[in-house]
Amino acid sequence: MMLGPTHDGERYELTSPTAMPKADGFLWNQKMMIQVTCRGYATSQFMQPEPAKYAHAPNLEGKTFMQPEQSYYSHHPGRFVYIKDEETGQLFSAPYEPVRAPVDRFVFSVGKSDIAWTVEHLGIRVEMTLSLPTHDVAELWTVKVSNLSGRPRKISVCPYFPIGNMSWMNQSAEYRPDLGGVVASSVTPYQKAEDYFKNKFLKDKTYFMCETPPNSWETMQQAFEGEGGLHAPSALLGSDLSGGDARYETPVAAVQYRIALEAEEQREYRFLFGPAFDDAEISAMCKKYLNKEGFAQSAQDYAQYIEQGRGCLKIETPDKDLDNFVNNWLPRQVYYHGDVNRLTTDPQTRNYLQDNMGMSYIKPEVARNAFLTALAQQEADGAMPDGILLIEGAELKYINQVPHTDHCVWLPVTLDAYLAETADYAFLEEPLKSVHGDTYTVFERFSRAMDWLLAARDERGLSYIAQGDWCDPMNMVGYKGKGVSGWLTVATGYALNLWADVCEQQGKPELAARYRAGAQDVNTATNTHLWDGDWFARGITDDNVVFGTKKDVEGRIWLNPQAWSILSGAASTEQREKMLTQVDEQLSTPYGVAMFAPAFSAMREDVGRVTQKYPGSAENGSVYNHAAIFYIHSLYTVGEKDRAYKLLRQMLPGPTEADYRQRGQLPVYIPNYYRGAWHQYPRTAGRSSQLFNTGTMPWVYRCFTEGLCGLRGDVEGLRIQPQLPSGWDDIKVTRLFRGARFELDIRRADVKEVAVSHAGKVLPNARITNIQPGATYQLSVSVPQ
Amino acid sequence: MMLGPTHDGERYELTSPTAMPKADGFLWNQKMMIQVTCRGYATSQFMQPEPAKYAHAPNLEGKTFMQPEQSYYSHHPGRFVYIKDEETGQLFSAPYEPVRAPVDRFVFSVGKSDIAWTVEHLGIRVEMTLSLPTHDVAELWTVKVSNLSGRPRKISVCPYFPIGNMSWMNQSAEYRPDLGGVVASSVTPYQKAEDYFKNKFLKDKTYFMCETPPNSWETMQQAFEGEGGLHAPSALLGSDLSGGDARYETPVAAVQYRIALEAEEQREYRFLFGPAFDDAEISAMCKKYLNKEGFAQSAQDYAQYIEQGRGCLKIETPDKDLDNFVNNWLPRQVYYHGDVNRLTTDPQTRNYLQDNMGMSYIKPEVARNAFLTALAQQEADGAMPDGILLIEGAELKYINQVPHTDHCVWLPVTLDAYLAETADYAFLEEPLKSVHGDTYTVFERFSRAMDWLLAARDERGLSYIAQGDWCDPMNMVGYKGKGVSGWLTVATGYALNLWADVCEQQGKPELAARYRAGAQDVNTATNTHLWDGDWFARGITDDNVVFGTKKDVEGRIWLNPQAWSILSGAASTEQREKMLTQVDEQLSTPYGVAMFAPAFSAMREDVGRVTQKYPGSAENGSVYNHAAIFYIHSLYTVGEKDRAYKLLRQMLPGPTEADYRQRGQLPVYIPNYYRGAWHQYPRTAGRSSQLFNTGTMPWVYRCFTEGLCGLRGDVEGLRIQPQLPSGWDDIKVTRLFRGARFELDIRRADVKEVAVSHAGKVLPNARITNIQPGATYQLSVSVPQ
Repeated sequence: MMLGPTHDGERYELTSPTAMPKADGFLWNQKMMIQVTCRGYATSQFMQPEPAKYAHAPNLEGKTFMQPEQSYYSHHPGRFVYIKDEETGQLFSAPYEPVRAPVDRFVFSVGKSDIAWTVEHLGIRVEMTLSLPTHDVAELWTVKVSNLSGRPRKISVCPYFPIGNMSWMNQSAEYRPDLGGVVASSVTPYQKAEDYFKNKFLKDKTYFMCETPPNSWETMQQAFEGEGGLHAPSALLGSDLSGGDARYETPVAAVQYRIALEAEEQREYRFLFGPAFDDAEISAMCKKYLNKEGFAQSAQDYAQYIEQGRGCLKIETPDKDLDNFVNNWLPRQVYYHGDVNRLTTDPQTRNYLQDNMGMSYIKPEVARNAFLTALAQQEADGAMPDGILLIEGAELKYINQVPHTDHCVWLPVTLDAYLAETADYAFLEEPLKSVHGDTYTVFERFSRAMDWLLAARDERGLSYIAQGDWCDPMNMVGYKGKGVSGWLTVATGYALNLWADVCEQQGKPELAARYRAGAQDVNTATNTHLWDGDWFARGITDDNVVFGTKKDVEGRIWLNPQAWSILSGAASTEQREKMLTQVDEQLSTPYGVAMFAPAFSAMREDVGRVTQKYPGSAENGSVYNHAAIFYIHSLYTVGEKDRAYKLLRQMLPGPTEADYRQRGQLPVYIPNYYRGAWHQYPRTAGRSSQLFNTGTMPWVYRCFTEGLCGLRGDVEGLRIQPQLPSGWDDIKVTRLFRGARFELDIRRADVKEVAVSHAGKVLPNARITNIQPGATYQLSVSVPQ
Repeated sequence: MMLGPTHDGERYELTSPTAMPKADGFLWNQKMMIQVTCRGYATSQFMQPEPAKYAHAPNLEGKTFMQPEQSYYSHHPGRFVYIKDEETGQLFSAPYEPVRAPVDRFVFSVGKSDIAWTVEHLGIRVEMTLSLPTHDVAELWTVKVSNLSGRPRKISVCPYFPIGNMSWMNQSAEYRPDLGGVVASSVTPYQKAEDYFKNKFLKDKTYFMCETPPNSWETMQQAFEGEGGLHAPSALLGSDLSGGDARYETPVAAVQYRIALEAEEQREYRFLFGPAFDDAEISAMCKKYLNKEGFAQSAQDYAQYIEQGRGCLKIETPDKDLDNFVNNWLPRQVYYHGDVNRLTTDPQTRNYLQDNMGMSYIKPEVARNAFLTALAQQEADGAMPDGILLIEGAELKYINQVPHTDHCVWLPVTLDAYLAETADYAFLEEPLKSVHGDTYTVFERFSRAMDWLLAARDERGLSYIAQGDWCDPMNMVGYKGKGVSGWLTVATGYALNLWADVCEQQGKPELAARYRAGAQDVNTATNTHLWDGDWFARGITDDNVVFGTKKDVEGRIWLNPQAWSILSGAASTEQREKMLTQVDEQLSTPYGVAMFAPAFSAMREDVGRVTQKYPGSAENGSVYNHAAIFYIHSLYTVGEKDRAYKLLRQMLPGPTEADYRQRGQLPVYIPNYYRGAWHQYPRTAGRSSQLFNTGTMPWVYRCFTEGLCGLRGDVEGLRIQPQLPSGWDDIKVTRLFRGARFELDIRRADVKEVAVSHAGKVLPNARITNIQPGATYQLSVSVPQ
C-alpha cells in the first residue's frame, strides 16, 4: 500500500483498493451528505426536511440514525462502472467493486471538494470524479475513459448505479429518452391518512441522467444481473443491454456506451444522480448542470463554498502529516458540523452547542445565532431541552426522547470559546423571547441555566443523572430518581466557574461570587463522596453504590471525571498527579486514551446500556474521541503539554502503514471513536468507527489553537502561550483573529517565560492588545526549553 | 423445466433452479415459520412473543409486516452448502446459490412436513432436508453427501449459514467446542430504559450446532468471503477455514468437513440452526434433537402434527392437479392460518375471525374459542376493535392503529360456517364477560354488533367507511366522516340476513324480523344510491362523489360490491346478469378476476392510498384472491357453477409450464394476490405475491366443500347439492362431518334434481339427517346434466 498526501496536502491518496477496504471520504452541502469508500460504495442522505435516501438497500430499511459501521454487500450502495473489452469479452469494474479484478493501477484520491479515482486495466484508464453542487441535491459524476494500449480498441463503458428497494407501495423505473436517462419512481410507504399529507411533496423519484445518450440501458436489477451475478452480469454477455423496464421490481440505472477508441483516444461522460419530485425538476437540474460548463461552474462554486470553512489557523511543524490535517481537514470537518448540524432537524442540545462553537473559528455569526436558537427553547425552569428543533414541524426523536441532565452545562462551556474568539459580550444583553413565551436577556438565560444545575442536585450536593448524562447509554444509574453523576457534578463546577468569570467581567461581582460558591460547593461534594484514593469515581447509583472505583473489576476508572475535575478545580495538584498516572496506566492504548477500562463484558443493571454494548465498540471501553479531547483540553490548561500532544497525535491515523491499516481510515477526518478493549481484543482495537459526526471537532481545533499554539483571545486582545511538545524546537503559525493576521515564528530559546517580539521589540507581556483589523502582525516568539 | 407432484400428491417437485427462481415452500409450528426458495434462500421468524429474526440482513432492518416480495440478494438469507473438490479446486454450492454452478441434476421437493433438495455435480450428490420441531424454535438440517463418481474422492463439505447484522449495540460470534458449533451473540438495540426490561429475556443468540465436529470453521463474514466474494469465497482457497471469531463484525456460521470418500460412500451430517437465550438452552436443544434418533423422532412428531390439519374433504376429479391441491395443500394452508394466526400477537379482527373459521373444518373447538376471544374484546357500544390482542402485553400495531368500520360484519359471516359444520347453537347461550367488564351472552354480543352496524350509517342508510373498510388502503373516501362504502353497505345486508336466520332458528322471530328489515333497508339504500345501470358503485366520497361507476376512467368497476350484493340479496336476477357480464368483460384475466379495473395510475385523493400503489401490485387492480373467492362463493350461492369453477381453478398455477413460470410459484399454497393490471403490464401480470398469509383460504375450502361438492350442514344434517362444472361427468368425494364419514360417488344422470341413494335406496331429499358419529355412509349421487 502506498499512501500519502499530495504535495499541497489538499488531497489524500490511496493506491490499493484492498489495503483499507473502507477507506473513505465525504462531501456535503446544506441539503445532502455523501460518504464514499475507495472501492465504490456510497452512503448518502438528503433533507426533505427529515433525512431521506435516494439509493436504497435491496431489502427493507429501518429508519434510524447514521450508522456507517454495518457491512457493505455486493448490490448496494454502489456507484460502479463496468468496462468490457468487446473483442475479448474481458470485464472489470471501476473503482473496484463489484468485479474486484486485480487492476494495474489504482488511485483513490480524496480532495476537499471532490473525490476521484484513477483505475487502469486491460490497457484502459478510467478516471472517475464525484462532486456536489453547492445548493442542490445531486451527485455530479465525470467518467473519463482513455485508451492506453497503443492500438484501436472496442469497448463498452457501462455505469451501473443500483437504486434498490424504494418502496413496497409503488416502485418502477424506465429509460426516458425525453429526459435523457433513467427515472425510477416510487411512493413513500405510509398507512395513516395524515401521513399522506406529510409525504405529498417528498422527492420520491431517483434519476440517473446522461449528458451523452447511451447505446442501450437496463432498469431492472434482476434483468441486469441474471444468473451471472453482479460480478459477471448476464446483461453484459450480449452486445447491448435489453432496454427493459422495472415494474414493481427493484430498479437500477445501467446504461451502456459501445465505443471504438483509437490509440490514445479519450472520451468523457457526465452523469447526474439524485432525487427529484417530478420530471420538471429533473429537466431543470439537467439544464443547470449536465454539461461541461455546468460541471465546471459547479466545481468552482463548491470549492469556494468549502474554502469558506478554511478556519483561522495554519501551522508548520516538524510533523507534515499533522500540518496537512490541521491546515486542511480539521477546519473542514469543524465547518461541516457547524454548517449542517449533522443533517438532522433535532440535534441533541450538547451536540448543537458544540458543533456551533466550532463556527466561532470560522463564521462566528453562525455560533451566535445558534446560542439564540438554543436559548429560545429553554424551559420555563431554566433547563435546556434534550434536543433543539431547527425547523417548523420537527420533533424530538430517538435518544432525544430520553431525559438527560447535562445540557445546561454546555452553555458556558461553549460560550467560553465564542467569547474568547470574538469578545462579543454585547450579545449577552440581547433580550430573547422563548417559544414558551417568557422573555429574558441572553445573560439571564445563562444564569437561569446555572441555577437549574445548582438545583438539580441531591442532599449531598451531587448532580442527579436521571436517565443519562453526556454518556447517553449510562441510563440506569439514576432512572429511579436517586442516582448521581460524578462527571456531571464536576462539569457543573466547570460551568459555574466559567459563568462566574463572565459575571465578573460583566460587572456583576455578587452573581460571580454566588456561582463561584456553587462551584466550590460541588467540588467539595465531589471530593467528599467520590474521591477513591487515586482517582474520582464515576457516580453513585440509585441504590447508593459508588462505581468507577478500585473495587470494580469492570468500569474501574473513567476518563471524564478525571478530565473535568481538573477543569472544575476539584482536583488538587496532588490528586491530579495521581489521576494522570492512573490514566496512563489503565486507559492509554496505542490508539488513544479509552473512555473507561476495563470494558464491560456483560450487563450491569445499575449502570445501564453502556455495559451491554460490545466491549470496545462505541461507548464500552472504546477510545471515545470526544471524551479524550476534553482530557487533552484539561491537560493543556495545566501545562501537561507532552501528555496532551501525544494524545492529540494519536487521534490521527499513521504515519506508519501498519497503523493506517489497523485504523482502516485515511486521515481526512477524525471519527467519533476508535475501537477499544485493547487488552481483550487487540485484533480489532484501534479500528475507526468511520462516523465523522462528532462533537470532538471544535475541541480539537481549540486544543491546537489555544493549547499547542497557545493563542487564545481575551476581552482586549490575544494571549500567546505556546506549549510545544518536547522534541519540537520551532513551529510557524498563522492565526487569523478579530480581523487581523498574526504570523508567528515560535522557537525554543533560553527564556524563563514566553517572550514575544513585534517589529523588533520585545513586548512587556506575551499578549497583543489594540488589535487592528486588516493588519498583519509578524511576531517572533521564544518559549522556554 | 420439469415440474409435478409425486405419485401420492404429497410432495411437489421442481427440477430446475432457474425456471422459477422464487419457487418456494413453507413450514411452521406454533412458535416459528420458515419460507424457503428452491435456490436456498430462507425467510424465517419466531415469536418471543412478538415476531423476531435469528438470521438477519447484513444491513439495518426495519420492523414491518411480512413482505416476501422484496428481492433476495447474495448474502442473505441463505442456507448454503459449498462442495469443493480438493483435488481440482472446483467448487459448487447446494442447493444452487450462491455459486450458481450449472448442476447435472437438481430436484427441489416440497413436502407437507419437510422440504428437500437433491443436487448432483462433479460426481457428488448432495441431499439436503429441512424440517422443524413441533414445539421448539429451530431448523433441523440434514446434509447427505454421496460419491457417485465410481472412484475415491477428496472433498470439503462446507455449510455456510449467514447470520447477518444482528445489532448495532453488541454482536459477536465464535466457535464453541464445548457446545459443538457456532454461537453468535447480540443485544437487541434499544434506547429507553423501560425497553431494557422488555428485552431482557429475548433470545439474542443465534446458534449453528453440528452433530459431527467439523475440521475447521469461520464465524466472521468478511474473513470468509474475502476478495473472492460469496460466489468464490477466499476462505475456501486454503485447505482449512481460519477459525476466526467475529468481534462486533457481521457473524456467519461456516464449518468445513474435509473428507475422503470411497466410491459409492456416503456421509450424513445433521445441524441445528436457531435462536436461543443462553448456552443452557443451546445444550438442551442439542441433547433433545441433534442426533439420528432425535431427528427421526422429531420428523415423526411433526408429520403427526401436520396430519392433524388434514381437513374434512377428499376429492377425486378429472383434474389430478386440483385433487392434489385440495386433498393435501389446501387444508394444510387453512390449518396454518387457524393454528398460528399468522404469527402475530394482534391479528386484524377480520383476519382472526376468518382464519379461525377455517378451523371449523379441522378443529372446531379452535374456531369456537376464537369467537370467545374476539367477542371478549368487543367495545361497550357493540363495535369490534381493529385487532384482537392474543397475549398479555400485546398492542395494536401498524394498520390496526387506523380505524376501519367493517369488523362487525365478519362475525355472522364466519359464524355461519362454524354453525353449518357443528350445529353448536348451544355456544350462543354462553355468558361472556368482556375485557371492559360488561357481561352478555354470545348471542347478545352478536346482536349488539349488528346493532352497531345498523347505527353506523348515514342519513341515506349507507354505511360509513371512516379510514377504511375491508379494503385497508381505501383510506380517504371517508376520512372527513361523511364518505360511505358500497361494499360495506351490502356486506351489512349479508351479515344481518345471516344473523336473522340464526335468530329465527333460536326461536326469536321478532329479532329475526328486526334484522331482516335492516337488511332490506340497506339493500334498498344500495339500489337507490349506488346502482349504476350495469353494476353497483364502490362508494360515495366525503364530497358526495359516487365512484366505481361508468364515468370513472380508472377504478371503474369493483368486484366486492357485485359479489356481496348477490350475497346480501340487493341484486335482482336481472341486475345480477348485467353485473356478471360486466365482471367477465372488465375484470377477468388469465390469472383470475381482478379486484377492480382499470388500475389506478396515480393518486386520487378522494379515494386513498389504494390509488398510489403500483398498478397491478397488491390492492391496485391486482387479482386479489380474497376478493375473488367471495365472488366465487356468491356464484355458488346462485348456481353459477361454471363461472365459479373457472375462477377457482385459476387460483392455482398450472398445469402448463408457461403458466407456472408466469406465476413463479409451485401450487403448494394460494398467495394473497397475483399481479394484475393485465392489460397495461402483461409481462408481470399473474406473478405470485408469494405471501401465503391470506383470509382467502377458509373460503376456498368452503367453496370446494359447500359449493362444488355441495356438502353443507344444517341444524339436523347434511345437505347434498353438488355443482359439478360442465365437462365433468363424475367425481368421488370423501367428507368427514360431525363424526361420520361420507363416501360419495357423484355422477351426472338424467335427473331433474339431485338424487341421493344410500344402501340401495333413493332418499326422499338430498339430505342426510340423524347422522351417527363413527358411521360411514356410502352414497351414490345423481346430478342433473
